[in-house]
Amino acid sequence: MDRMEVDQGMEVLTREECLHLLAMVPVARIGLSLRALPVVLPVNFVVDAEQDQVIIRTAAGSKLDAALLHSVVALEADHIDPMSHAGWSVLVQGTSRVLLLPGEIERARGLNVRPWANEEARDRFVAISMDVVSGRRVGLL
Amino acid sequence: MDRMEVDQGMEVLTREECLHLLAMVPVARIGLSLRALPVVLPVNFVVDAEQDQVIIRTAAGSKLDAALLHSVVALEADHIDPMSHAGWSVLVQGTSRVLLLPGEIERARGLNVRPWANEEARDRFVAISMDVVSGRRVGLL
Repeated sequence: MDRMEVDQGMEVLTREECLHLLAMVPVARIGLSLRALPVVLPVNFVVDAEQDQVIIRTAAGSKLDAALLHSVVALEADHIDPMSHAGWSVLVQGTSRVLLLPGEIERARGLNVRPWANEEARDRFVAISMDVVSGRRVGLL
Repeated sequence: MDRMEVDQGMEVLTREECLHLLAMVPVARIGLSLRALPVVLPVNFVVDAEQDQVIIRTAAGSKLDAALLHSVVALEADHIDPMSHAGWSVLVQGTSRVLLLPGEIERARGLNVRPWANEEARDRFVAISMDVVSGRRVGLL
């Protein structure tokens, strides 16, 4: 994708820049539907660039886990300076799936994604395909 | 709502605690559907406790503005310590509507919500009703 100069006063980032920024923060927010209502929740995540996906951890049997069995979700990460309000935001849109094969679970475990809370219970790895990656930068860093 | 001791290793917050925490941060993430895909975007916001709503600013004619004409959305704010990963997350679910009456626009302007970017273009005020407010605290602050 070619860089566009401005989009509503923001600089549009390339996919490469987005992936670089994503790798710099441990926490993102996942947006999905739960009981037909939009929900946004913080999650720890890692970028699995080799497989073009993002990995998060959930608790098996939780509402979030059920919602992530096979749905289209959004994952947003950002960094915003509290004083200047300069910063960036990256959005990943893709399909989530729970990892079930022993080999891919083992591989995900090796990526060292930290669970958001309650480490023992969050034994389920979920992969989100990076189908659409977009990002914006606001102000000067 | 009575406080529950734990929910997946997290402490459940009361509505009062959630509103108190919401007022402490200027940036939230809004989750909604855009072209039938889930989207999460950072927004500046203020709590309008008197009207039991949250106010954000958008650019008239933008995709976000159109999506907010009358939809069910989620707004999430959090604060997470990068080292200890202790922190909190608050989720508001409600219906968004663009403010159209001169009186309510004037009132919203008085709440001093800062636009996320491009101040001149973001001349539209959107109210999100706080129909459902929920929150969690993780770890010790």
